[in-house]
Parts: sequence; C-alpha cells; structure tokens
Amino acid sequence: MTDTIVALATPNSESALSVIRVSGELCKSLAKHSCAVPSPTPRHAYFTKYTSSYNEVVDQIVVVFFEQPKSFTGEDTLEITCHGNPIIIKEIISDLIVRGCRMATPGEFSYKAFNNGKIDLTQAEAIAELIGAKNKRAISLASKNLEGKLSEKINLIQATLLEQQSRIEAFIDFPEDGLGEDQTDKIIIKLQSIKSDLENLIGIAKKIDAFNRTLKVSLVGPPNAGKSSLFNKIIGSDRALVDKVEGTTRDYIDQMVNLGSVTIQLHDTAGLRDTTSTVEKKGINKTKELVESTDLVLLVLDSSAPYPSGIESEIINLNEANTILVLNKSDLKKEISLKNSFVQKFEQITTSVKNVESIELLNDKIETFLSEKNDIYKEFNLFVNQRQSKAINQSKSSVEKSIKHLRLNQSIEFAISDLKDSIDFLGEIVGKKDNEDMLDTLFSTFCIGK
Amino acid sequence: MTDTIVALATPNSESALSVIRVSGELCKSLAKHSCAVPSPTPRHAYFTKYTSSYNEVVDQIVVVFFEQPKSFTGEDTLEITCHGNPIIIKEIISDLIVRGCRMATPGEFSYKAFNNGKIDLTQAEAIAELIGAKNKRAISLASKNLEGKLSEKINLIQATLLEQQSRIEAFIDFPEDGLGEDQTDKIIIKLQSIKSDLENLIGIAKKIDAFNRTLKVSLVGPPNAGKSSLFNKIIGSDRALVDKVEGTTRDYIDQMVNLGSVTIQLHDTAGLRDTTSTVEKKGINKTKELVESTDLVLLVLDSSAPYPSGIESEIINLNEANTILVLNKSDLKKEISLKNSFVQKFEQITTSVKNVESIELLNDKIETFLSEKNDIYKEFNLFVNQRQSKAINQSKSSVEKSIKHLRLNQSIEFAISDLKDSIDFLGEIVGKKDNEDMLDTLFSTFCIGK
Repeated sequence: MTDTIVALATPNSESALSVIRVSGELCKSLAKHSCAVPSPTPRHAYFTKYTSSYNEVVDQIVVVFFEQPKSFTGEDTLEITCHGNPIIIKEIISDLIVRGCRMATPGEFSYKAFNNGKIDLTQAEAIAELIGAKNKRAISLASKNLEGKLSEKINLIQATLLEQQSRIEAFIDFPEDGLGEDQTDKIIIKLQSIKSDLENLIGIAKKIDAFNRTLKVSLVGPPNAGKSSLFNKIIGSDRALVDKVEGTTRDYIDQMVNLGSVTIQLHDTAGLRDTTSTVEKKGINKTKELVESTDLVLLVLDSSAPYPSGIESEIINLNEANTILVLNKSDLKKEISLKNSFVQKFEQITTSVKNVESIELLNDKIETFLSEKNDIYKEFNLFVNQRQSKAINQSKSSVEKSIKHLRLNQSIEFAISDLKDSIDFLGEIVGKKDNEDMLDTLFSTFCIGK
Repeated sequence: MTDTIVALATPNSESALSVIRVSGELCKSLAKHSCAVPSPTPRHAYFTKYTSSYNEVVDQIVVVFFEQPKSFTGEDTLEITCHGNPIIIKEIISDLIVRGCRMATPGEFSYKAFNNGKIDLTQAEAIAELIGAKNKRAISLASKNLEGKLSEKINLIQATLLEQQSRIEAFIDFPEDGLGEDQTDKIIIKLQSIKSDLENLIGIAKKIDAFNRTLKVSLVGPPNAGKSSLFNKIIGSDRALVDKVEGTTRDYIDQMVNLGSVTIQLHDTAGLRDTTSTVEKKGINKTKELVESTDLVLLVLDSSAPYPSGIESEIINLNEANTILVLNKSDLKKEISLKNSFVQKFEQITTSVKNVESIELLNDKIETFLSEKNDIYKEFNLFVNQRQSKAINQSKSSVEKSIKHLRLNQSIEFAISDLKDSIDFLGEIVGKKDNEDMLDTLFSTFCIGK
C-alpha cells in the first residue's frame, strides 16, 4: 500500500475559502468517514461536513472525489474546500494525519502525476513555472509547455536523430551499398540543422532567465518631491495587489507589487542630494549603481517648485530607455519649467497623490513600459528552463562530436554512439524515471500542495 | 437582470491553487464561452482551459457549475480553480469583467445567500466569525451558529413571547373570563424565565468578546538570555504558521503566529534592566503594564549563567497564573540555581535554540496553556456577537417593561405592545430584509469572496 499524502493547496491565511488536497488509497475511506459521503460519484461536488476522529464537526465543506486514474496524480484524490481560517485548516490536516495520511513533501502531487505517467517532466516543470511566473508572457509560454509543446519539439528532434543513426547503421551493416560522401554530407546537413534547433532552444533559456524575474522600479528624485507618498499610493491603489509571498522584504522602502501583467519590486530611494553637498561624488555613484540594476526609473520632480537644476549632474546616466519623468504635486500651481533641461527628453506623466486617477494612469504606464520590454518573448513559442537547457547543451555537444566523426570517414561507428548519447540527453528533458536523485531535487523546489 | 459578481475566494499569492467565485445569471454562458463547457452538469468538476475573450488560453482550470437555487448564493454559481499565481488570477478576473461581470463587494456572496433565503443573518455572521475565529473553541461555537442553533434558540424564545402575548390578548378581548392574579403571575413567571435566558445570551457575548482575540504572549527577561533567538525560533518552527494577513505589524518585535488551536501575537521585549539602573522605577512600571496586557509571559533566563537576582524587583508582579519560566541555553553547562528565588514557583521548561525539539515542546506548552484559558467557552454552546447582543438587550428591556405593566393591573394593554417590541427586536437577529443600511454595514465587514 502506498502512502496517502495531504497538503494545503492554497495560501495559509484568513480568506473565504481554502483547499486541502489528499491523494492516495485512503481517499475513498476518508470520504466516507470524515466527509459522510460513503460512495462518492467521481468529480461530484458534495456539500457536507468534516467530522474529526473525535466525532467533532470541524467545518462545513465541499468535497470532490477524483477516481484513479482520472485524477491529477493518477491516484484516488480528494479536494476538500473549507472556510479560510488557519486554525480550521490545521484541524482538518491534523485529523487527516490521525486517520493515516502523511504531510506531502513539496511538489509531491506533481511527482506522483509524473510517476504515474499523467504528465512528463516538462509538464511538471511547467506547473511550477506557471505558479512562479513573473509576467504574462512567461505564463503563456509555460502554458504551452504544460500542453506538451516542448515535449513535442524534443520528441521530433529525437526522431530525426534516430533516423540519422539508423542511416549510419545501415551503411555500416551493408558497406557494399556505399554510403559515400554524398550520403554522409546529407546526414551532416541534417545534424547541423538539429544543432541549430538545439542552439535556438538554449538561446530561449538564456533570455527567459534574464526576463522572468521581478522587475525593479525605483523612485528617484530630490528631497520633498513626494516620492514616499507616491510609493504608498502605488502600493495602496486598487489595481496594485501587494504580494504577501514569504520572503518579501520587511524593509518599508521595498515592496513587491503585482500590476496586472507584471510583478515589480518598487523601491523608494533617499532624496537625491543637490550638488552643493560635500559628498556629491558618492551620491552620483550611488545613483549610477541604482540605475544600472533598475528596469525602470521613475524620476519624480515637484511640479509646484522651480526646476532643481542642481540635480542634473546626479542623474546624468539616466536615459530615455529606462526613465519616466513624473511631474508630481499637479494639484498645486505649476512652477516648474523644463526648458533647456536635461530631463525634457524623457517620457512624462503628471501625478498628484490627491488624484486617484493619476496614480492609476501612472500604474498603467509602468505596466505598459515593462510589458513592452518583455515583448522580447514574442519571438519564442516555448519556455525552456535551466535544467532543460543544460541537457540540450549536452545533447548538442554529442551532435557536434558525431558530425566530427562523420567528417573523419574512418570513425563513422563512433558517430552512432554520439547520436545515442544525444538522444539520451534529450530523454532527460521529458524525464526518465530511474534518476531518483535528480527527480527528488527537482520536485523539492516546487511549492507544497502541488 | 441582476449583476453577475466575481471575486477571488483564496488569498492572493503564489500557491498551488486559487479559487475564483462567480455568481449570477451569466454563469452558464461563461461556462460555455470561457471554459468550453457548453451544458455543464451541475456540481461536476470539469478539467478544462480558461480562454479569454481575445481567444488566448490563460490557464488549465477545474470548473464546477452550481445551478440555482442549489448553490451557496441561491443563484447560478461557478467555481474556477486555477494555478496560484497573482498574474493568472488577475487575467481571469479581468476577463470575466470584460465578459460582463463586476467585482463583488466584501461579503456580497453571503448577502446574496441571505437575500435569497439560503441562510439567515446569524448564519451569515457565523461564516465571518468562522473565518476570523482566533481559537478552536470559537470555531466550534461559530459552527453551531452556522448550523442554525442560535436561530433555533431565538425562534423558541419568540414563540414563547408570542404565546404570552396571545394569552394577554385573550384576557382583554374576553374580560369576563377573568385572567385574574393567578393567570397574571403565571405569565410573569414565564417572562422572567425568558428574561434570564436573554441575560445568559448577553453574558455569552461579553465573554466571547473578551476571549475571541489574538492572545498576547511576551518574552521577558534580562539581556542576553536569548529572547530574540527564541522569538525567531518560535515563529520559524515547523508547527508555527506565521500569519500573513494584512495589517500584521511590520515591527520585527511583534509577530502573529498560529500555533494549531490558538493564534498568538508574540512580542519580544527589550531586556529587563537590572535594579542598579537609575531608571529602575520606570522599568518596573513598564514591565507591570506589559504583564497586565499579556495573556502569557515567557520569563526567559540564561541557564548557563548564575541566577540574576537583581531582576527580582522588576518581575514582582508576575504570577503563576500567566507565567512560564523558560530556562534557555540548555546546550551549555547549567550554572543557574533557583533555590530561594522568586521564580521557582513558576511552571518551568528547558530550551535551547540549537534543539528543535525543545522549541516544539515550548510551542506545545504555550498552546496548552492558552487553550486551557479558553476553556471558559466550554460553558456556552452558542456564539453571540455584539450586534446580536445589542438586539437581545433591547428585547430584554421590552420584556422588563411588559412585566412592569402586568404588575400594574390597570395598564395590561401596554404589555402587549411591549411583547410585540421584544419579538421584533429578536427578529433583527435572524434578519429582516427591509433594513438595508444595517445589512450593508454588516456585510461590508466580511472578507471579499465570501
């Protein structure tokens, strides 16, 4: 008998609902004894009560039974939806453990799905990538992998490799047929085309790695331009969903925010010192560093005051490609003049913390700006992660070796084992079940309940 | 046509799953057009894809359709389970809004359920109380209200009041039958018994108000006893679920933690100054204040150092009823002696931040200690909140007036309108649908998605 595992699948905090997931042989018996549903119709949502082993009603719940093999994990599965209170969640999970379940390890539901042939490894990874994706484009690429598009691509390449391998084998078995230079050239051309396909996939992985992250947006400007008030308005606005994910920094000048299609880390900075300051040079260096590590700089100026020309030397390394000029305090009389100023080349927006709409427009602008940056994704139609990229790279090396061996006519047999290797390396992407260490490591990075 | 409302029912952060709830007339059409399920069988869980109005696949989902009136709200309802990524959630909700839904206001799903006669007001409130309950006992009482136990009790009292009202009316209509002093006395006795029932309910509300809150646990002790390390170990331990609810203080010395059956606010304090300090008195006062507002004091001493006898005068107001003595740094050689010390009367526990088990035992002790305090709940079998208590109090006053009028034989007619009032006040508990302002206020305190 295999273990029956349980985990909370939703975040653990007060909310309308929480979902607890159970997978394994005990599910049917749990449906009967905990949920008073003796013979559940698969996939039917029952409104019932959760009763503990001590015969106490813990909560009103909705329970759905998924019968194996037609479930996510391929095993019997229960999804229990209870009210969203951490104490209720703990009561139910503790009781399920009393009744013979054990806590699932991170990613164990996906691991079971993989082991039971419900999904391959690229699909399992796509689930983790979907959950962790930091922008809309990354989500849509991960969705394609979840549908199996990467596996299809890999399978196609494997088939082509196998075809070349067979052609070489035929030549070795029946040398009298004469593969000849003409034939060898054809195989080499095919292999070179595969090599470039593999290189493309590696290129995707590199670019995704650079872009699928929280984008950094910094508020920069002289003191009293209203940066901190803007900071609070952005994170407090209706459309900004402040991320409560573990690990969010507790420093008040740094906050993760979801702005619809992108996740940003909003960073408030100390006011730029004016150039009369004695530590001028240090200040400039600091801004320089900041700008280099920031995806978007919001240069905030007080529009009700004269242009602070003293700041010019401090912001010299800001450029149009990553700066928006925010003319703040638009509720007051406009005094600023940008004539002949360094900053007039930047895209501009007018804001006032007293005007909710202006903050929404600012949020829109941030989102649009960063989404356009992300449009580099448009050129891909797949998501390739680092693990996959590594295997593709190994496969590519073997293909290169095979080409080399084919070119040196006397070592054609070696090309066969090279191609076998290259096929095997690609096999690791889709997943071989015998590599337990790799699998354990891989799934342990997933979130719990998945 | 009524609005179709949508809201996220689970917390908005990265997790395995998220649940989006939709209620209203559009649900069937949304199932067809967004979820590719043209004629959903009610309560059947479909594994499908969510497709946006722009014909983009947003995510793989599970969708369940609940047909009116057999749904939580009494309307057609959809529950869409997607992957737990705030960007996916926002995409789906935005698309549902494009398709004609609007964002639900807090508590609007429950409001609809109430309006459609699916639940009464005590049950709607029980849902909010369940979600916000801070300990196991409060959850089990709120569950009883959700089952309708408070409504039953109120209905019973109303029926008894109505019975007395009818008996008085009969006496007025047929004075020749002679109600007589004997009859009046019997009615008064009944009314007095009702009055004491109502007083009991008011008493429950008072006690619940005092106990259904986050309990405060403070770490107190001399400097370098290891309080801050213990603080971090407690909030970081496996069984302590750190609350991520909005409003959690960002001050690092204050953290909400769920310890299974109770929610605590763990408070780290500055080290107690020893008595040679010049501001001695101030220090003592501060500890006094802290101890008075704390449900449990963890007095932390370094067991590898001699007993800090200087602290005695500062902790003089600690008492066994709310103090546990924590002998910390048990990994080091024990040097402390509690002989003749003030603290030896306290319950003791030995800990070391290097010993995970000892921290688990400390957490157990905290939980047990506070749960026992909460056992005062055992005497109730219902949850009565402040709104309900207020109505009960008004009803009680009317009952008192009726008794007064019955005693003054010449004003018996007035007793009838008093009893009518007392019945009406109780009616507000279960809910009258014509009091829109009250209902709007009440439901607006609920969480979104409920």
